[in-house]
Amino acid sequence: MTADYRRLRIALLGAGAVGSQVASLLLEHGDELADRAGAALDLVGIAVRDLDAPRDAELPRELLTTDADALVVGADIVIELMGGIEPARTHLLQAINAGADVVTANKALLATHGPELFEAADQVGAEIYYEAAAAGAIPIIRPLRDSLAGDRVRRILGIVNGTTNYILDRMDAEGAEFDDVLAEAQALGYAEADPTADIEGFDAAQKAAILASLAFHTAVPLEAVHREGITGIDAAMIESARHAGYVIKLLAVCERLIDPETQAESISVRVYPALVSRSHPLATVHGAYNAVFVEAEAAGDLMFYGAGAGGVQTASAVLGDVVSAARRHIAGGVGVGESTLADLPMAPVGHVVTRYQITLEVDDRPGVLATVAGILSDGRVSIATVEQTTGGSQDAGDAVARLVIGTHRALEQDLSETVERLGASGVVERVVSVLRVEGD
Amino acid sequence: MTADYRRLRIALLGAGAVGSQVASLLLEHGDELADRAGAALDLVGIAVRDLDAPRDAELPRELLTTDADALVVGADIVIELMGGIEPARTHLLQAINAGADVVTANKALLATHGPELFEAADQVGAEIYYEAAAAGAIPIIRPLRDSLAGDRVRRILGIVNGTTNYILDRMDAEGAEFDDVLAEAQALGYAEADPTADIEGFDAAQKAAILASLAFHTAVPLEAVHREGITGIDAAMIESARHAGYVIKLLAVCERLIDPETQAESISVRVYPALVSRSHPLATVHGAYNAVFVEAEAAGDLMFYGAGAGGVQTASAVLGDVVSAARRHIAGGVGVGESTLADLPMAPVGHVVTRYQITLEVDDRPGVLATVAGILSDGRVSIATVEQTTGGSQDAGDAVARLVIGTHRALEQDLSETVERLGASGVVERVVSVLRVEGD
Repeated sequence: MTADYRRLRIALLGAGAVGSQVASLLLEHGDELADRAGAALDLVGIAVRDLDAPRDAELPRELLTTDADALVVGADIVIELMGGIEPARTHLLQAINAGADVVTANKALLATHGPELFEAADQVGAEIYYEAAAAGAIPIIRPLRDSLAGDRVRRILGIVNGTTNYILDRMDAEGAEFDDVLAEAQALGYAEADPTADIEGFDAAQKAAILASLAFHTAVPLEAVHREGITGIDAAMIESARHAGYVIKLLAVCERLIDPETQAESISVRVYPALVSRSHPLATVHGAYNAVFVEAEAAGDLMFYGAGAGGVQTASAVLGDVVSAARRHIAGGVGVGESTLADLPMAPVGHVVTRYQITLEVDDRPGVLATVAGILSDGRVSIATVEQTTGGSQDAGDAVARLVIGTHRALEQDLSETVERLGASGVVERVVSVLRVEGD
Repeated sequence: MTADYRRLRIALLGAGAVGSQVASLLLEHGDELADRAGAALDLVGIAVRDLDAPRDAELPRELLTTDADALVVGADIVIELMGGIEPARTHLLQAINAGADVVTANKALLATHGPELFEAADQVGAEIYYEAAAAGAIPIIRPLRDSLAGDRVRRILGIVNGTTNYILDRMDAEGAEFDDVLAEAQALGYAEADPTADIEGFDAAQKAAILASLAFHTAVPLEAVHREGITGIDAAMIESARHAGYVIKLLAVCERLIDPETQAESISVRVYPALVSRSHPLATVHGAYNAVFVEAEAAGDLMFYGAGAGGVQTASAVLGDVVSAARRHIAGGVGVGESTLADLPMAPVGHVVTRYQITLEVDDRPGVLATVAGILSDGRVSIATVEQTTGGSQDAGDAVARLVIGTHRALEQDLSETVERLGASGVVERVVSVLRVEGD
């Protein structure tokens, strides 16, 4: 069936969990993919570090090579699934400069060296496809770039890390503590032996930078992403959130801020655990699933849900890109690309306006609430709800009460200064937690 | 800012709820859209039936015309938002034959005359964009066509009609009856004065045909879509569904069937109210929201959620298509298009295999359950659960019990023959309802 098609040379760099699935699907579904692409997709080689390493899928031995440099030469499409910065960056630049279109799932590389790669591609008229780098198998790049091209994105709230969503979801379902659930997640393969990249929010921050760049037509450097992980979340905070009608999710928030006085626009990109109303669609995202919730001016609320990781799932996104790149080789046109024409400035996290839930341990004696309320009011933080969840003085000397304060919308820098003053006030024994409320 | 861009002539046909929003956004956001499209989008005219009709948005009088024929001449991109078959079909063919790319939200036209339009476009190398025709503002065309181009769709379960989802959701939340909620929906503008197209599933069937065509690379004629509406759903059925852990949703189901013996593939496309587990992501789609749940071989489960209708929401999808069409005018390439290369046969609804929930009123006397079970077994329908929900004989003469039977997976034609035999069996007073269970 593929005899009449123009033949395209596909080079694959990397044969890990995703790479070996991509190779298998390319080899197994070659005819069907050729019909869809309008071109025969000839997998000409797979660059690996070790020819004898065990693979997730059986790959033809004659396709394997350790010479990625040689493999890239003459390829029409190069698929980079090595991960990491080097040598992935060098190989991609090599491929681009030779005029190949490239497909990559490498979020770390794009979040740190995206502008360099996109500029190199622009110079030679090559295209970079990266659907799998933003939210795994969830198609989000084309909706943001094409379907919403006539709209303006206000905000994106993303659950973009499966490991942390799994952990928080189990803690919520079982009332379990973080360490126990992390150990369970590691045993089940949902978390790495070194879980830092996930639980400290580094992985989510890379994806947030990619999503924000695309949504706001602005190059967002990884350093501009405010990042907090989930290691400080404990069972008591989750229970307290539940009591108030919330669930705690690690969110990647990409938001267009508008200065109320000058109307000047800026972008805030941040990753942190946040309270989400249990009636919000994101609250229904369980286990290791991911979802990207997009608020657009005209389209309203949209949500894209699916597997955020996994070898075969991610391979689906990679192959979609390969077919698109192949179509472009045949029919011309532009690829996914990036656009930085809006070039908006980055806002520091202090400029963000959200609601907060502040939990304090305070001395349980008369006048304390008035003092706390006064500090908040002086700091331009307006109280919406107060609940005294524990305490009750039996012994006036060292009794401690717990205050859970919900605020109205406040400026993050006002809030953080106020929380500092609360901690130093003498009536507050301990600031137990400060969590933002997102999705209002 | 747009001075250097090539100028494209945009003709708009129709200025109803969607059309007037599209015109407003084109005029207001012209510079931003030009930057994204790489071309200035000049709205050269808006064809309307009546120059003096009231509009949802104020439009420049000098752009309005009643002469759609003249407007189409010389346009680079024609946006058709008139709805209905004629004269929309004639104008689109006219535009295509003149070499214009066309953007349409007209699901009725695409579901009935799609092949004719796509063939005309193929002949001249024009493109048809129709993101707004499949699920309103939800980006689903590009994910299906591009992002999943390297994958195989197994099944789509869509909540694609906002009116019926609103009605079923209110019935579920309030325990209200169909007629009362329909009247409420009409008063609120969620349902038309004549709600037939929505509540009888005609609208959903058109969208199902479009989604199935795209997902399975096969032209799906509207006549091949099995269609049942929601007028038979009452509060008792919803309560019974809830009791069993289900919610009732009007689903558009597009499924790839594989003959267990020959492995031959066929497609089933059907619209009917079905039971969906309350833990399924589709169960969380409330109010007038829509969602399309896609099960793909590699990508796994994906869901696309958003507003299924509304003037400004749908306008977002239309404008995304306009920008795509403009980019193609500048950079070449292929549009959204359609592909029928798989050309799979349509399966009758009798070939579908699902689980069922059968509710019967039976004589409340010994031996009845044995008789019912025997009829099911003879009909190759295997029982998974039985519950006797009401009844209890005080007077053996005319006591009636209610049996709710959950089946294992069974062939629809076996099931329907079996239900007929149950109805004629003498022990069954009334077949109260037969509902399919989807989403397993």
